[in-house]
Amino acid sequence: MPSQIANEPKVAQPESNKVFVLEEQGRFVYSSRPKPTVDSRYVLVKVLVTGLCGSDIHYWKHGRIGNYVVEKPIVLGHESAGIVVEVGPDVKDLRVGDRVALEPGVSCNNCRTCRSGRYNLCSGMRFAATPPYDGTLATYYPLPEECCVKLPAHVSLREGALVEPLSVAVHVMRLAGDVQGKEIVIFGAGPIGLLCSAVAKAFGAKSVVVVDIVESRLEFAREFSGAKSFQMTSQAPEANAESLCNTFGFAEGADVVVDATGAEPCIETGVHTLKRGGIFIQAGLGSPRVNFPIGQICDKEATLKGSFRYGPGDYQLAVGLLDSGRVSLKSLVTHEFSFEEAEKAFINVAERKGIKTLILGPNVDAGFED
Amino acid sequence: MPSQIANEPKVAQPESNKVFVLEEQGRFVYSSRPKPTVDSRYVLVKVLVTGLCGSDIHYWKHGRIGNYVVEKPIVLGHESAGIVVEVGPDVKDLRVGDRVALEPGVSCNNCRTCRSGRYNLCSGMRFAATPPYDGTLATYYPLPEECCVKLPAHVSLREGALVEPLSVAVHVMRLAGDVQGKEIVIFGAGPIGLLCSAVAKAFGAKSVVVVDIVESRLEFAREFSGAKSFQMTSQAPEANAESLCNTFGFAEGADVVVDATGAEPCIETGVHTLKRGGIFIQAGLGSPRVNFPIGQICDKEATLKGSFRYGPGDYQLAVGLLDSGRVSLKSLVTHEFSFEEAEKAFINVAERKGIKTLILGPNVDAGFED
Amino acid sequence: MPSQIANEPKVAQPESNKVFVLEEQGRFVYSSRPKPTVDSRYVLVKVLVTGLCGSDIHYWKHGRIGNYVVEKPIVLGHESAGIVVEVGPDVKDLRVGDRVALEPGVSCNNCRTCRSGRYNLCSGMRFAATPPYDGTLATYYPLPEECCVKLPAHVSLREGALVEPLSVAVHVMRLAGDVQGKEIVIFGAGPIGLLCSAVAKAFGAKSVVVVDIVESRLEFAREFSGAKSFQMTSQAPEANAESLCNTFGFAEGADVVVDATGAEPCIETGVHTLKRGGIFIQAGLGSPRVNFPIGQICDKEATLKGSFRYGPGDYQLAVGLLDSGRVSLKSLVTHEFSFEEAEKAFINVAERKGIKTLILGPNVDAGFED
Amino acid sequence: MPSQIANEPKVAQPESNKVFVLEEQGRFVYSSRPKPTVDSRYVLVKVLVTGLCGSDIHYWKHGRIGNYVVEKPIVLGHESAGIVVEVGPDVKDLRVGDRVALEPGVSCNNCRTCRSGRYNLCSGMRFAATPPYDGTLATYYPLPEECCVKLPAHVSLREGALVEPLSVAVHVMRLAGDVQGKEIVIFGAGPIGLLCSAVAKAFGAKSVVVVDIVESRLEFAREFSGAKSFQMTSQAPEANAESLCNTFGFAEGADVVVDATGAEPCIETGVHTLKRGGIFIQAGLGSPRVNFPIGQICDKEATLKGSFRYGPGDYQLAVGLLDSGRVSLKSLVTHEFSFEEAEKAFINVAERKGIKTLILGPNVDAGFED
Repeated sequence: MPSQIANEPKVAQPESNKVFVLEEQGRFVYSSRPKPTVDSRYVLVKVLVTGLCGSDIHYWKHGRIGNYVVEKPIVLGHESAGIVVEVGPDVKDLRVGDRVALEPGVSCNNCRTCRSGRYNLCSGMRFAATPPYDGTLATYYPLPEECCVKLPAHVSLREGALVEPLSVAVHVMRLAGDVQGKEIVIFGAGPIGLLCSAVAKAFGAKSVVVVDIVESRLEFAREFSGAKSFQMTSQAPEANAESLCNTFGFAEGADVVVDATGAEPCIETGVHTLKRGGIFIQAGLGSPRVNFPIGQICDKEATLKGSFRYGPGDYQLAVGLLDSGRVSLKSLVTHEFSFEEAEKAFINVAERKGIKTLILGPNVDAGFED
Repeated sequence: MPSQIANEPKVAQPESNKVFVLEEQGRFVYSSRPKPTVDSRYVLVKVLVTGLCGSDIHYWKHGRIGNYVVEKPIVLGHESAGIVVEVGPDVKDLRVGDRVALEPGVSCNNCRTCRSGRYNLCSGMRFAATPPYDGTLATYYPLPEECCVKLPAHVSLREGALVEPLSVAVHVMRLAGDVQGKEIVIFGAGPIGLLCSAVAKAFGAKSVVVVDIVESRLEFAREFSGAKSFQMTSQAPEANAESLCNTFGFAEGADVVVDATGAEPCIETGVHTLKRGGIFIQAGLGSPRVNFPIGQICDKEATLKGSFRYGPGDYQLAVGLLDSGRVSLKSLVTHEFSFEEAEKAFINVAERKGIKTLILGPNVDAGFED
Repeated sequence: MPSQIANEPKVAQPESNKVFVLEEQGRFVYSSRPKPTVDSRYVLVKVLVTGLCGSDIHYWKHGRIGNYVVEKPIVLGHESAGIVVEVGPDVKDLRVGDRVALEPGVSCNNCRTCRSGRYNLCSGMRFAATPPYDGTLATYYPLPEECCVKLPAHVSLREGALVEPLSVAVHVMRLAGDVQGKEIVIFGAGPIGLLCSAVAKAFGAKSVVVVDIVESRLEFAREFSGAKSFQMTSQAPEANAESLCNTFGFAEGADVVVDATGAEPCIETGVHTLKRGGIFIQAGLGSPRVNFPIGQICDKEATLKGSFRYGPGDYQLAVGLLDSGRVSLKSLVTHEFSFEEAEKAFINVAERKGIKTLILGPNVDAGFED
Repeated sequence: MPSQIANEPKVAQPESNKVFVLEEQGRFVYSSRPKPTVDSRYVLVKVLVTGLCGSDIHYWKHGRIGNYVVEKPIVLGHESAGIVVEVGPDVKDLRVGDRVALEPGVSCNNCRTCRSGRYNLCSGMRFAATPPYDGTLATYYPLPEECCVKLPAHVSLREGALVEPLSVAVHVMRLAGDVQGKEIVIFGAGPIGLLCSAVAKAFGAKSVVVVDIVESRLEFAREFSGAKSFQMTSQAPEANAESLCNTFGFAEGADVVVDATGAEPCIETGVHTLKRGGIFIQAGLGSPRVNFPIGQICDKEATLKGSFRYGPGDYQLAVGLLDSGRVSLKSLVTHEFSFEEAEKAFINVAERKGIKTLILGPNVDAGFED
């Protein structure tokens, strides 16, 4: 009975670490590795829930993302939650049995970048499921305690796994500065766009408009976060932007635009949607290059910021949004698979079914009550 | 004897306002208009020196810049300094005889944009020499007192006229945030790039590198501001960026990049030159659209800001840089023409001769000692 | 029937302006003055609801606040809402019949302070009911349109009158920076402290603790904003601070402390409550001098900010909080008096009855449905 | 010959670590300890120059500072420079022979405070010469490499030792935000006040006024940094402030005030000197409590920040100021003692002789050419 896992975390743990390995582009295998040991300020987490992300699927299908190449077998997965089963001797704040969301990037903490408060940009970052570092689709995963954020009792491990993409959205929206009373437009109704819309609402935005080309995704967005929606057409960017602003009464344009698509027409429409002095956050890692209306950036004295993963306080704030109920992630989860069916989960995401697909376990039943 | 103008400002003033008018694209005429009257917090300035800017030449040659179209005769010129000859009844801080640099944009001051501290983005801005508003190539020019910044006695009116482009550079460099100890790369050795290099040095940058394709311009840059220089080649942007960083030992890239060209290869090279977390300021209003490496912006979590004219405190800070001697503009002035030869001045700039071309007067001799 | 006022704003308006005047310290009279005329961008507002503030009572009782002295008769009142009945020729966004909250400070808008985005610090500010400027306890009140913020249809004029103190609280909480997920302690359960607690919650604070010495006021606070509460005792500041932090599990202290009392024991306890790197906002204008633990400010590298009235965007954000329902002010209003009973309203506040006391009208019935 | 140390750093090093120990309040002894070993990212520095600071003297004379109590023997000294003689296996950027300034606080780097960019506030900080952690008056001192900042060849080790107090001043002035073109008043012409004046000038302040009661110290200040000076009298704070502002033409007050005295009359005069919206930095750790004009802070909407040691980038920026010649520290050094005469150095500082007193060595001659 899976719910006993949480209640009886001190029962004997399996000594082997079952992992789901991408042997090479396109080919998964299961394998058994030695259980990791933890020292100093590290803890060992028994992974119970892992969400799949577009990047996982991309490594499987294409064997690389940009300069990151799968050159040797790698364990994928980096959106995970689990239970602490061992703690190193220097661990201060975590205890065996704690339910935690995993922040899957381990920064060096000692370089100038880390010490200046931007550890997400650390050149020594070891990030789960980014070659050559193994990810979390495993029985056990070791992390320093600063990368494990405790979940309140009433926040499920499923939501805990989604703290990772929620933190991406928190990071995006914090880059936008104070959004209280602001008008926000978000391009893309995929997981990151949806989460940005929920965070923007929680952060006090006056209006949040989600833009997509697929009406069913917009319908989901309206229900998920209470955002308004706008269906982009094949018109010119200027025309789409004008139509959007007219529809929502943005006389001078939107205060903040978030692009969570990486698609050129969205980026361009977004820049045209922006008011003078506005802020544009590029959240999506789509096209590496686009045709870009840079004259608009000057003329509007706009600011464009790229958002990269998450940094100081983002995970804690994401968990706080779940704790206070200002954001709920339950309705995002549309599919669940057991660890034994992991490849089916990958196929499901590759076929663009639903919003978020989770893999439970290893050693967790499908019906797992959490 | 022109220098008496400063000493005897209360002598009888001519009652007519001589203006140099762009009648229509490509055709200038001289005209005489009634002397403007000033009321409330306005002052009347006798214009003594005016610098020419690329935009003046563009209106003359092309009759438009973007959406701004010369639809009726317009007086050009907006980089000016002069002497206050009349003050309105509500003027508080200026006196007849004050030598002033003219800030040529009159914002409404009452809208939300103005009141929030970004008057340069005011939608009601009336900017000299931007259609339909007349510029400063005139005997007299009326401005509200907040647009006239007093010049210290030892700062010449010639330098005063160049406070306008210097303020553009001050605005650019303030957008870059604190540059103390930072490594700065500036693309373009034209007037704005040069001024940015001088301001960056004055603001405490550790290294300032000016990039251009013309070695003679780079030589000027090295002498003008003490900047280092880098001659771009026709290599790919990545190769130019790598070469630049290697040359100057920027192990992780530059902290701040300023583009003062608007040219696609420069913008792209600049983004590749940027370190993670760096800031890119787009100062040049060149191409309205470019092919842009937006993936780099995300991957580096960089910030791109457009810079538009100047805002609160920029003029005062520019005058302060001249006052303290941290920036000197004298060597920028390569050509001077009398008001009667104004068209020659336009031709001179159109032929890309020298760095800055000034027009003196009306009613000022060429030898004007200032 | 008062509600007709809103529906029929174009009926003939009385030509005289009835005002409630503080003739001298301690003595009110009613008077009739000519109806103000409006020009340029001014509008004339028919005042329908006015809240009383401690400063109104202080001028009545003591004839001065600090350097501001009642040297000639003055109309008090500055927390008002009403209906636009006339608009000047340059008014752009307001129409006769618009229901508006009045921002009672008219800044010059043209000085460097105003133009830099801090108009609340304008040395030329003319603030209603601060000598020598008349306040709003009148039939009509003229204001420039930027000082009139439209109320959404479902926000009552009573709430509209309280936009003034709500904006004080908005300004305080914005000075605290991003409070998402933060722990906030607010000293004082009077109107400003209560409003700060509501705004802090709306702005996403994780915990908001209101501190007072009177349990009934704390009970009101808990109901009003859902804040937690802490009853201060006569212990030493360190002991009260330690007890507070222990009670709410603030292991390292609170992120933000707001003092809305101006009382030395509260300020001192507040500083001891603060975590390292924390922010302390002084909202209350109590004692001009206090015995202050400045060593703590250094040791904690804390920031102390004074808050003065409200500035750019505060009124708009306050109205937005009411519009979205994130803050409701209805329960704050404990007493209402007609214009004819205005002195009773002053007496009521002086006797510290209830939370907020409103004066309706002139020409508005007590039962006024709004 | 000491200068050979730099040239021949690989010669055999003494195996014992000579230390100058405060055995208990008031009593020093010399002792010999084992040479420290270094592991991971630590380096071992041979200490060549150490400056004395008021806190060193205070521990010697009083056995405590606030809650920090000398409960067991402790080595004092924390303003040091030296040469790297050993590097741990994980050290990346330092080499044996590197001349370095020592940043004497070792933060944990892993807690939320450190990771958010404020490591100076780390609760796990181990700071040299703050009980119970030993300081640098020793042959050898081990530090992680992030705490050793390389000195350019032309910056002497004497200046290197003073990078510590210079970084205190850099931290103070960075807390003041952008000071370009601003008017700055600094109370106290002791080492920190002097260094703040030099940094404020280097950072582009328009005017820097140093305030003290002793004319000879003001004379030193004028020469050291080119600051202006103001001699405070025993007048009331308001009168001193008014006199200061009149003297220097600060019509609305100073933009930034730094107090480097901790003395109540200075703090109070400083607050009165501040313009509306100004920033006050408390740099001196004098009185833990003062009588404070908090009403002024509200009325002016001023900001008061405590400054605590130094944080990310401060050491690097301090070294950069020396490298570029924008700050020179040579004239600050008024006395030098050999390691064998260390107690005389403490006596010298206790008797308030000169500005900065250095201790050379161990094993460095008095004439040490650096």
